[in-house]
Amino acid sequence: MQLGMVGLGRMGANLVRRLMRDGHRCVVNDVSPDAVRALEGEGATPAFSLEELVERLERPRTVWLMVPAGVVQETLDHLVGLLDPDDTVIDGGNSYYRDDIARARALAEHGIRYVDCGTSGGVWGLERGYCLMIGGEPGPVERLAPLFRTIAPGAGSAAPTPGRTRTDGTAPQGYLHCGPSGAGHFVKMVHNGVEYGMMAAVAEGLGIIKHADAGLRARTADAETAPLSDPEAYRYEIDVAEVAEVWRRGSVVGSWLVDLTADALARSPQLDDFTGRVSDSGEGRWTVLAAIEESVPAPVISAALYQRYESRGLGEFTAKVLSAMRSEFGGHAEKRSGADA
Amino acid sequence: MQLGMVGLGRMGANLVRRLMRDGHRCVVNDVSPDAVRALEGEGATPAFSLEELVERLERPRTVWLMVPAGVVQETLDHLVGLLDPDDTVIDGGNSYYRDDIARARALAEHGIRYVDCGTSGGVWGLERGYCLMIGGEPGPVERLAPLFRTIAPGAGSAAPTPGRTRTDGTAPQGYLHCGPSGAGHFVKMVHNGVEYGMMAAVAEGLGIIKHADAGLRARTADAETAPLSDPEAYRYEIDVAEVAEVWRRGSVVGSWLVDLTADALARSPQLDDFTGRVSDSGEGRWTVLAAIEESVPAPVISAALYQRYESRGLGEFTAKVLSAMRSEFGGHAEKRSGADA
Amino acid sequence: MQLGMVGLGRMGANLVRRLMRDGHRCVVNDVSPDAVRALEGEGATPAFSLEELVERLERPRTVWLMVPAGVVQETLDHLVGLLDPDDTVIDGGNSYYRDDIARARALAEHGIRYVDCGTSGGVWGLERGYCLMIGGEPGPVERLAPLFRTIAPGAGSAAPTPGRTRTDGTAPQGYLHCGPSGAGHFVKMVHNGVEYGMMAAVAEGLGIIKHADAGLRARTADAETAPLSDPEAYRYEIDVAEVAEVWRRGSVVGSWLVDLTADALARSPQLDDFTGRVSDSGEGRWTVLAAIEESVPAPVISAALYQRYESRGLGEFTAKVLSAMRSEFGGHAEKRSGADA
Amino acid sequence: MQLGMVGLGRMGANLVRRLMRDGHRCVVNDVSPDAVRALEGEGATPAFSLEELVERLERPRTVWLMVPAGVVQETLDHLVGLLDPDDTVIDGGNSYYRDDIARARALAEHGIRYVDCGTSGGVWGLERGYCLMIGGEPGPVERLAPLFRTIAPGAGSAAPTPGRTRTDGTAPQGYLHCGPSGAGHFVKMVHNGVEYGMMAAVAEGLGIIKHADAGLRARTADAETAPLSDPEAYRYEIDVAEVAEVWRRGSVVGSWLVDLTADALARSPQLDDFTGRVSDSGEGRWTVLAAIEESVPAPVISAALYQRYESRGLGEFTAKVLSAMRSEFGGHAEKRSGADA
Repeated sequence: MQLGMVGLGRMGANLVRRLMRDGHRCVVNDVSPDAVRALEGEGATPAFSLEELVERLERPRTVWLMVPAGVVQETLDHLVGLLDPDDTVIDGGNSYYRDDIARARALAEHGIRYVDCGTSGGVWGLERGYCLMIGGEPGPVERLAPLFRTIAPGAGSAAPTPGRTRTDGTAPQGYLHCGPSGAGHFVKMVHNGVEYGMMAAVAEGLGIIKHADAGLRARTADAETAPLSDPEAYRYEIDVAEVAEVWRRGSVVGSWLVDLTADALARSPQLDDFTGRVSDSGEGRWTVLAAIEESVPAPVISAALYQRYESRGLGEFTAKVLSAMRSEFGGHAEKRSGADA
Repeated sequence: MQLGMVGLGRMGANLVRRLMRDGHRCVVNDVSPDAVRALEGEGATPAFSLEELVERLERPRTVWLMVPAGVVQETLDHLVGLLDPDDTVIDGGNSYYRDDIARARALAEHGIRYVDCGTSGGVWGLERGYCLMIGGEPGPVERLAPLFRTIAPGAGSAAPTPGRTRTDGTAPQGYLHCGPSGAGHFVKMVHNGVEYGMMAAVAEGLGIIKHADAGLRARTADAETAPLSDPEAYRYEIDVAEVAEVWRRGSVVGSWLVDLTADALARSPQLDDFTGRVSDSGEGRWTVLAAIEESVPAPVISAALYQRYESRGLGEFTAKVLSAMRSEFGGHAEKRSGADA
Repeated sequence: MQLGMVGLGRMGANLVRRLMRDGHRCVVNDVSPDAVRALEGEGATPAFSLEELVERLERPRTVWLMVPAGVVQETLDHLVGLLDPDDTVIDGGNSYYRDDIARARALAEHGIRYVDCGTSGGVWGLERGYCLMIGGEPGPVERLAPLFRTIAPGAGSAAPTPGRTRTDGTAPQGYLHCGPSGAGHFVKMVHNGVEYGMMAAVAEGLGIIKHADAGLRARTADAETAPLSDPEAYRYEIDVAEVAEVWRRGSVVGSWLVDLTADALARSPQLDDFTGRVSDSGEGRWTVLAAIEESVPAPVISAALYQRYESRGLGEFTAKVLSAMRSEFGGHAEKRSGADA
Repeated sequence: MQLGMVGLGRMGANLVRRLMRDGHRCVVNDVSPDAVRALEGEGATPAFSLEELVERLERPRTVWLMVPAGVVQETLDHLVGLLDPDDTVIDGGNSYYRDDIARARALAEHGIRYVDCGTSGGVWGLERGYCLMIGGEPGPVERLAPLFRTIAPGAGSAAPTPGRTRTDGTAPQGYLHCGPSGAGHFVKMVHNGVEYGMMAAVAEGLGIIKHADAGLRARTADAETAPLSDPEAYRYEIDVAEVAEVWRRGSVVGSWLVDLTADALARSPQLDDFTGRVSDSGEGRWTVLAAIEESVPAPVISAALYQRYESRGLGEFTAKVLSAMRSEFGGHAEKRSGADA
């Protein structure tokens, strides 16, 4: 098939490469002309404006947006004047699923189809393929199946699920039509919430193992902090990198995230390159908002989100209030305050 | 009654003052002779050693320890050689209740009685009285009732509980024999766990109100961090100090902790004197350990404990592991990393 | 002053009574004519329709809505056609603060003033007074001061804050103009979030004390559940009702919520009348949503919210997924599954 | 090598089978003679008592215990009288690592070596191999290397870690000597803690997706519960089983646990066979205890632990206290109570 790609960042460019490798033809556009030229050198058709992109696509056109969430709307506003009925726009980025509902409705008024597609795989997707979570009307989603099949990892990328008896469905190939508009980004949003929780579980575990030497280190012996009750039980100096490596094989926690953690620790055993200020993009937050609105408890994913907030020092005023209270009832300055009374 | 006080820190000295005001006689000892002389000037009988203290007490003696948890054991070891059968030692500090069980047993071999007494009230106890949570055998606890009555706030310090029909019991006077050895410190331990949770609830709430102006402040517009979805909904500059003050009257969250918070914010509206590194002494930790062993969920108290850990930067390695993972799958350095893939 | 009250539930009726006691004149309306007549018997002017209510009020009129959040909008829609410029509507219920912003704007188009007022105090407010958190333009808020002064508990209801030096401000009287439209309900929303956290802290603590007898009870000795590691450390049968009572005096956790808990336990020591299905109204949820959007960590309040969800069984499917996973890797049925492998 | 296996449950029996397949000789013992005979039929040497087992092993003997944690101590007490200096006992079960320290010390007095070995892999280990986390002195651990190599999955079971430059170390083969006595079970303990967190993350995510249809279901319209604010945003009926299937390929959350979840959902899309009462064995609890003692925040793993407690109804009294408080300040019975005041 032919596809127009808008946005040639790491994800967009690799999607184009993966599509071209499999014989699809791509017209490519980016705010950076250099990015366009780079992919032209790899066989793509260049387009230095949206107008040019639209012009070079055969009807019904297929335009895939792989741009930051913050510029999706303006890109759509621009495109809507250029496209024709029955053309399809795919938002492959990390938009909020509620925006999809509104956007699909707005484009439908012009006869333009809208598909939301959550795309997971990171920088590894070029080789591994991307997991695709898709929302929208059945018609355009089915028309785009050849693209999804190419982008997704394919059935061979994991062993068959033993208990699976149904033989239809595309999930084993790594892409899934989840439901109407927004359903793709909804599932991708929750996917990222799960990601937060899994990452936090691994990180906390390795943190606990790292500090298994607490009994070997002198701890400030003031009234401020509880002393370690059993220092002799925390005298292990365990090689955290090797633990991550061994968990990659045969263990219950085996996962791609553990694979990546093992890799990071192999490169930098103390992780000195990192400050530990962990960003969060919108999807973790939205997942928690959805849980709260649906009345589904999500303590683990929420804790993972707040852990990221804490890592960036965002709880500072809250902590100051705690210190102030302790000072009030204990009668001490923060540093000298005694036991909680 | 006559009482020997070992440990003349803020809590110990104020206990002595409150007891003397009510006509009790106190023999006082401390590692600092100056502290002993200061209370001698207020009418107490000085004792510059444990030997002298024991000598000056009439039998059966009553010795109240108000020393750091870390020196209780050595003080007991010293005292056990000086005391006689039927003397009583009270540990009024913040010992771990499990230590009480062992200590009561050890002292019982010498016929010495042991009472554990959790003491809440902080620097305000001199005027307000102290809430006492007591463990030990009924005999010595009953013998000490005159002391407990003086130290506790008394029935008039709070309105009667409307639904209370039983007329026995000392709880309305502010002291309670909770059970056998360790029960007093167990209840005090949990009291402090509750304190952690209540403090955190107030502090988080005020933090949220403080940041109700988020929509007025520019937020870094990078792919790192989710933008504020509705900035116009966060345009309030609310006077947090006045909020604490108004909550003191008629509201459901009215409490001594809110009173203290209002006071701290009245003195320092931005809490600039505090760094927000919040210490934790043993009792919060032990409360969570007890919950886990009893199989009782305690998510709120645990979250409050971890919040204190986070405030001191103790999750740093864990956060570095998170950053490392994000770098691995996103292919970026920590500062430039894009959306979670 | 004269005030029209719409909604004569427990809160609305008691507000009217408290206002009339202090000499204010009230016109009262409710969907139930009986409720109107009951207050007529206590001296209020009856109004059996909104039309009648508006007719009987002197201009500029003051109408206080004390109706369920779900019917505020329709009531306003009705009122807007009846009121005149410079009349004021107060929403004293638990509306979402974002709705206030829209409503104030809509009413302003008709010259009608809108004030949002969070009202805390529950069924005790008639005697204790209500804590009022107010949002809106300064003009109408100032005009209503005589009403707020009567409804609030007054300065004498709590001891002065020692560190408070400013002599202006109404917070010490128990009411506070927090900011523009929505600010009152915003602060009330967070107030309720704090309430969730404080309640949970107290409840968890008493739960831990209640189960301090875990070592006395036989625990199923299967591979399913971890055995109690130190049963001898959990042999206390502590009177939870008396603990709540003693914490009311002199302790750091002293609070109205502990007062109420002591009362409930005095009436029903085992709380047999309760099932433990804990409802949550909107404000706890909204507080967490605000924390997440502001990027302020709120782990304690969130945990308290989820605890309520769990108490109503809302995590059932999630738990089934956990059981299913354990079954998959452990090879057992739910009831027979062994140790986590 | 030759090995004596004590305990022929699923794990023990499969370890024997995997060892024999690779040419090792096994003497097997179990409390059930049938279990012994069954493995005899597969080529093992039967031993119907520990005495017989010890007799049939060549010196220095190697005895692997695969028995419930609760009977390890008595088995060791029995074995210590039968073994000779330089014999080695391996505890391959889920003992608490602190017990290992004491046991290694006690056996060392008789010259007997003790190795603790955390074994992950569940019922799948026979085919996939087991991840082994080993503690003890270097001597015996090295002597046992041929056994560990057979039991572990081997290097080919996962792709090499790209960043790994060191060529020594056994972790890539799936077994790791983590440190002195207890280190193996310490790492296995934390492994299971991570497992709790990862499982919870997946389960919560699927729960949120399952309830994405909340807007399609009527919700009780009472004052008890917050209404769904945007029902039109929750109108998705998403096939949770297919989501788990698609996440197996190319996504960041790809993991063995997601594989197993997909399998469970393929077999039973509604998980009707499960009640959702999730057990917890000791290792999740111990992980949290270690985190607290080390002062490392572990909010995610703790939340996962409490989620299991909640699933078994263990928070009931705590929830009743909450209901009682709401009743007190709201003046309602549990079912009829209105908004939080």
